[in-house]
Amino acid sequence: MDKYISIKDLEDAALEVLPKATRDYYKSGATDEFTLAENKRAFQRIRIRPKCLVGIKGCELKTTVLGETVSMPIAIAPSAMQRMAHPDGETANVKAAQTKGVVYTLSTISTSSIEEVAEAAPNALKWFQLYIYNDREITKKLVQRAEKAGFKALLLTVDTPLFGVRRADVRNKFNLPKHLNLANFEGDMSTKIHESGEGSGLNHYVSGLFDKGLTWDAIKWLKSITKLPIVAKGVLRGDDAVRAVEAGCAAVLVSNHGARQLDGVPATIEALPEVVSALRGRDVEVYMDGGVSTGTDVYKALAIGAKMVFVGRPALWGLAVGGQAGVEKMLDIFRSELEYTLQLAGTPDVAQVTRDMVKHESEYAKL
Amino acid sequence: MDKYISIKDLEDAALEVLPKATRDYYKSGATDEFTLAENKRAFQRIRIRPKCLVGIKGCELKTTVLGETVSMPIAIAPSAMQRMAHPDGETANVKAAQTKGVVYTLSTISTSSIEEVAEAAPNALKWFQLYIYNDREITKKLVQRAEKAGFKALLLTVDTPLFGVRRADVRNKFNLPKHLNLANFEGDMSTKIHESGEGSGLNHYVSGLFDKGLTWDAIKWLKSITKLPIVAKGVLRGDDAVRAVEAGCAAVLVSNHGARQLDGVPATIEALPEVVSALRGRDVEVYMDGGVSTGTDVYKALAIGAKMVFVGRPALWGLAVGGQAGVEKMLDIFRSELEYTLQLAGTPDVAQVTRDMVKHESEYAKL
Amino acid sequence: MDKYISIKDLEDAALEVLPKATRDYYKSGATDEFTLAENKRAFQRIRIRPKCLVGIKGCELKTTVLGETVSMPIAIAPSAMQRMAHPDGETANVKAAQTKGVVYTLSTISTSSIEEVAEAAPNALKWFQLYIYNDREITKKLVQRAEKAGFKALLLTVDTPLFGVRRADVRNKFNLPKHLNLANFEGDMSTKIHESGEGSGLNHYVSGLFDKGLTWDAIKWLKSITKLPIVAKGVLRGDDAVRAVEAGCAAVLVSNHGARQLDGVPATIEALPEVVSALRGRDVEVYMDGGVSTGTDVYKALAIGAKMVFVGRPALWGLAVGGQAGVEKMLDIFRSELEYTLQLAGTPDVAQVTRDMVKHESEYAKL
Amino acid sequence: MDKYISIKDLEDAALEVLPKATRDYYKSGATDEFTLAENKRAFQRIRIRPKCLVGIKGCELKTTVLGETVSMPIAIAPSAMQRMAHPDGETANVKAAQTKGVVYTLSTISTSSIEEVAEAAPNALKWFQLYIYNDREITKKLVQRAEKAGFKALLLTVDTPLFGVRRADVRNKFNLPKHLNLANFEGDMSTKIHESGEGSGLNHYVSGLFDKGLTWDAIKWLKSITKLPIVAKGVLRGDDAVRAVEAGCAAVLVSNHGARQLDGVPATIEALPEVVSALRGRDVEVYMDGGVSTGTDVYKALAIGAKMVFVGRPALWGLAVGGQAGVEKMLDIFRSELEYTLQLAGTPDVAQVTRDMVKHESEYAKL
Repeated sequence: MDKYISIKDLEDAALEVLPKATRDYYKSGATDEFTLAENKRAFQRIRIRPKCLVGIKGCELKTTVLGETVSMPIAIAPSAMQRMAHPDGETANVKAAQTKGVVYTLSTISTSSIEEVAEAAPNALKWFQLYIYNDREITKKLVQRAEKAGFKALLLTVDTPLFGVRRADVRNKFNLPKHLNLANFEGDMSTKIHESGEGSGLNHYVSGLFDKGLTWDAIKWLKSITKLPIVAKGVLRGDDAVRAVEAGCAAVLVSNHGARQLDGVPATIEALPEVVSALRGRDVEVYMDGGVSTGTDVYKALAIGAKMVFVGRPALWGLAVGGQAGVEKMLDIFRSELEYTLQLAGTPDVAQVTRDMVKHESEYAKL
Repeated sequence: MDKYISIKDLEDAALEVLPKATRDYYKSGATDEFTLAENKRAFQRIRIRPKCLVGIKGCELKTTVLGETVSMPIAIAPSAMQRMAHPDGETANVKAAQTKGVVYTLSTISTSSIEEVAEAAPNALKWFQLYIYNDREITKKLVQRAEKAGFKALLLTVDTPLFGVRRADVRNKFNLPKHLNLANFEGDMSTKIHESGEGSGLNHYVSGLFDKGLTWDAIKWLKSITKLPIVAKGVLRGDDAVRAVEAGCAAVLVSNHGARQLDGVPATIEALPEVVSALRGRDVEVYMDGGVSTGTDVYKALAIGAKMVFVGRPALWGLAVGGQAGVEKMLDIFRSELEYTLQLAGTPDVAQVTRDMVKHESEYAKL
Repeated sequence: MDKYISIKDLEDAALEVLPKATRDYYKSGATDEFTLAENKRAFQRIRIRPKCLVGIKGCELKTTVLGETVSMPIAIAPSAMQRMAHPDGETANVKAAQTKGVVYTLSTISTSSIEEVAEAAPNALKWFQLYIYNDREITKKLVQRAEKAGFKALLLTVDTPLFGVRRADVRNKFNLPKHLNLANFEGDMSTKIHESGEGSGLNHYVSGLFDKGLTWDAIKWLKSITKLPIVAKGVLRGDDAVRAVEAGCAAVLVSNHGARQLDGVPATIEALPEVVSALRGRDVEVYMDGGVSTGTDVYKALAIGAKMVFVGRPALWGLAVGGQAGVEKMLDIFRSELEYTLQLAGTPDVAQVTRDMVKHESEYAKL
Repeated sequence: MDKYISIKDLEDAALEVLPKATRDYYKSGATDEFTLAENKRAFQRIRIRPKCLVGIKGCELKTTVLGETVSMPIAIAPSAMQRMAHPDGETANVKAAQTKGVVYTLSTISTSSIEEVAEAAPNALKWFQLYIYNDREITKKLVQRAEKAGFKALLLTVDTPLFGVRRADVRNKFNLPKHLNLANFEGDMSTKIHESGEGSGLNHYVSGLFDKGLTWDAIKWLKSITKLPIVAKGVLRGDDAVRAVEAGCAAVLVSNHGARQLDGVPATIEALPEVVSALRGRDVEVYMDGGVSTGTDVYKALAIGAKMVFVGRPALWGLAVGGQAGVEKMLDIFRSELEYTLQLAGTPDVAQVTRDMVKHESEYAKL
């Protein structure tokens, strides 16, 4: 593992070992992949303004999210069907999260079940990503199982009335490999995904089952069946963030779904200021994901107002390269990069990373 | 046809099958082709701001243009001499439009006559693109034939006192292949185009026949000979849009003629806001064409204020690849892309696509 | 000549036929050649906003400069030692200018003498570019010879206390080929240039002879020895333009010396608005040169406020490719491109090309 | 040496002769090297606005820094372990500085001792770059030795609580070659650097010895043990510049440590205006380093308000190519480029290079 010294190293190695269809599924973005590239480029347009001689005594990455302590403000984002990346899939991923003290988020569409994941890492701080199915009973059962299994929050995906078009998946007629199933379901619901229609089998599956008619009222319904705090995942506008909070969400995750839904939407680090600004003065947390691949990316998101960032693809690259050890390596790299960023920026405690620590490049476009 | 999943796929395939002179004629822009590239790049500078959890019940692409219903706000733009792309030329194109319920616009300079086109697709919503000839009788006859054949609107091209210089055409000494004629004319007028001068034979033809002295008074004259509503095609300035409307036009088509007239003019999606703003409060429709090649492009144009967009080259690529079936494929791709864009943006009815749904990238250049 | 349909074509052909040292001398810019590239790129950042249906009756390129009529607002810029490009050098160039009715500007450092040029094209409108030598008698004689030979204006170069560093010239130890002399001088002054020091022999020559101590008072002195109107060539700032006019200049030529003097200065089309604005309301003319290579470039300069533009390298490319005929071809291309630009922009008379006809791209960076 | 006519020439030659680990160490920047590239690109976004006909009598590059006269406002920046570049290392470098009359700055982490450097160039104007060690006695001794050896100022590095991550060094397990030692120390302290941990041996060394807890109070302590003026090296914010001055610094060096500490910080020429503005009205000097590689770069920094610029890598390239003669060549190139820049800009005395002489490119983004 020692030869990997950056997330890019892990990505390069993973792209070599993964079979084509899986590799394409993981790395693709929607249609022309403009936003996919922007998610990264937009970070480059933000400058960190380090302070000197602040007197560094230590370096504190610990923070709290929704009342729970995490070892650093970096969480593992939900991503579907992780056993495609490594035989241990979600269980390896959650074990790495447990070891490293970060949030692990399990996808509804996983190849390990809620219970398997809970059992694999009983002490991990686990959150559950939720799609709401047309059949509300199915949904209710998922939520209750997650709550019972010790998951501590629900990430309700709010940007997916249907799945975005990822052209490589269409060309590959992508589907979950036959030897894997959707582990949170039984019988039909578990294997239905294999009945591919034209193009992407996953999209076919989704479009039959997810509730497209969902509104913000769904939050009320969810709160009637669970005590878990709810995070609205997929918000890109200030007004939607306010809607989420007024509907009862405890937090908002600024996300464009890894640029996999609609091409042409803003990079998440571009959308973050609007959301933070809209929620100023409210007692809620804001997170972000999308394109985060270095410690300075994390730092910039924190400075703009995120309480935590999620990383999805980096965990998959780690998983593909080395299972649990690969994910741990990924988290170690982020921790190390964030640690020296905090110190070199003169804000050795994440709590010190305030808005004043960054400027947009356009603010430097004058003499 | 199934292997084509994007307009780009159709374009790539078409560029392979077309003979060089035709290919060059279709894809070229004026001189340095800066605006040709900008027509596409400018779309990338606009961001879509999706709304979440809006409660999608269906997806409605239907709209009306000049009082007639179309199945989606995408029309086939006029382009000259379509039998160069496929033996069936304009008749295949209009049949596809009929099948798919969209506007087909016939060029004055076509290789199928007004009547052939009408007969091929009696139920299509057909508009006629008009160049005004020095000989007003010729022009009058064209208009009256179109009206009689059931065409429902006239697109008067207002940006063409002469044809722009497309260097490849000059180098190729481009001309209509000998076995084809300008089908809307008889005798000399039909074959005159083959008497090439130096350079582009088409430009030679045009410069001898079109009325360069045309002013906005032409609208009045047109209205005196036809009841058809008139659309000013080729407007790039707000003040010209007002002139068009005050002269009696029912609609304005923001167009730079596929970037084929004058290089260095704005991309059409750049010029659209100025025109929409100048016409605010007037009971007229605004359309646009130029560089539209994805569903998100269409969406952005609608959000800025276009009632419909026209696609020219995409229809030619479809035609080249598969005749009527190719054009239908092109329209299917656009429909599918626009459908999921509408849903993923949280505005499942085209009527909901308002100005608030987009931002220029420069609005994100701040923290 | 017919195969050349753009200035770029002539440039490409010229770069192939010229010997390396001459080619490098002509095409080089100062040091890193950033401004050399910017001179062209900056034109792309300006958009032409065409007007429709203006009623074109003809196309008028004629204009006046300093009271004399020219066939179009494009002049041949002074460039040194033109017999390196073609055996006929300056005499071929001036003959082309005569045939085509445009201003020819002879360099002080020419390989044909003032009198040879006058004799070659007695009816051309000829201007003389002047460097002021330490020896004012030499300078005075040059001015008086030019005046006597029928030259109609003096372009005093104001940006050259010394010559800029063009690295290729230094590496090539560039010098005037032995068989050529500086034809405006006799004896030592004519051949001294061959006594190369280190690096560029031209720079060596210049640094020994030109008056670096020159101030705006030089205009007064010039006016005391000649009746010719004086044009300040090489102004890039508004305040300097005012100084030039207050010192008695009849016109100002916005120029960065073909980006050959100091790298990092503004592109001339960038500097033009500042100069035009500073001179608003004064009865003087403003010209520009630098990077002009298409008819739309000329149009943009006119719209911002230039009365005429100068082209230097294009004349050299024409000369290299075909002597007088090559320069004529170059002028024909510009005339043709400017003609259709004027018509397609809806301003068929150069006098109609006003500030309103262009916008900077940044003005389109909003919806 | 004559074949080198730009700093880029020296760089290219040096990169060829240096062994890989040394080459990587010298040229690397922090992590993704975005700021490394920006340090150069940001200069291109600034335009010089030359004045014409100012009457050049001579060219004066002389200036004073902290009360001492230097032959030009270009100093040699401190860089570590220069004997890796050339056997004569720091002593060749300081001799070149002495010959050319510029400031030489010795690094704490040098391969020649304070005394060796002083002896090699007794008449050079020498400054000493200081890292403060946990062991304050070690630090005190260094300062007192520098003062005794005739060094005239202390550059206290304020941006290095730890060393930035340069990935090539980690991959190369970079360390000082065994035959070299840290010459300012004895025994353990001198050889400890060879006890490499994982990754970069230098970072390992630094993290064990440097005082991370340093605050601006360190300036007071330094002033209690030395009379030398203190320069705060590594400031990128206006507020930090004020802190430095209020703590007693005589000057501030705007630096991002050659983009080697934290990637994503501003280019130094971007940060300079903020620092100059924050210190306006105070009797202190501002310097800058970072990406300076041409005379026009120097000019731009002076115009924005720097009293002097430092060049680090250029001196190493000179050293690698030709020892003392190579560094002298480097200084000659800068002098020559600055001389003609001053003259061509119409400000032949460095004292005339004021804020008005430059504009940001964004100021030209309008007509």
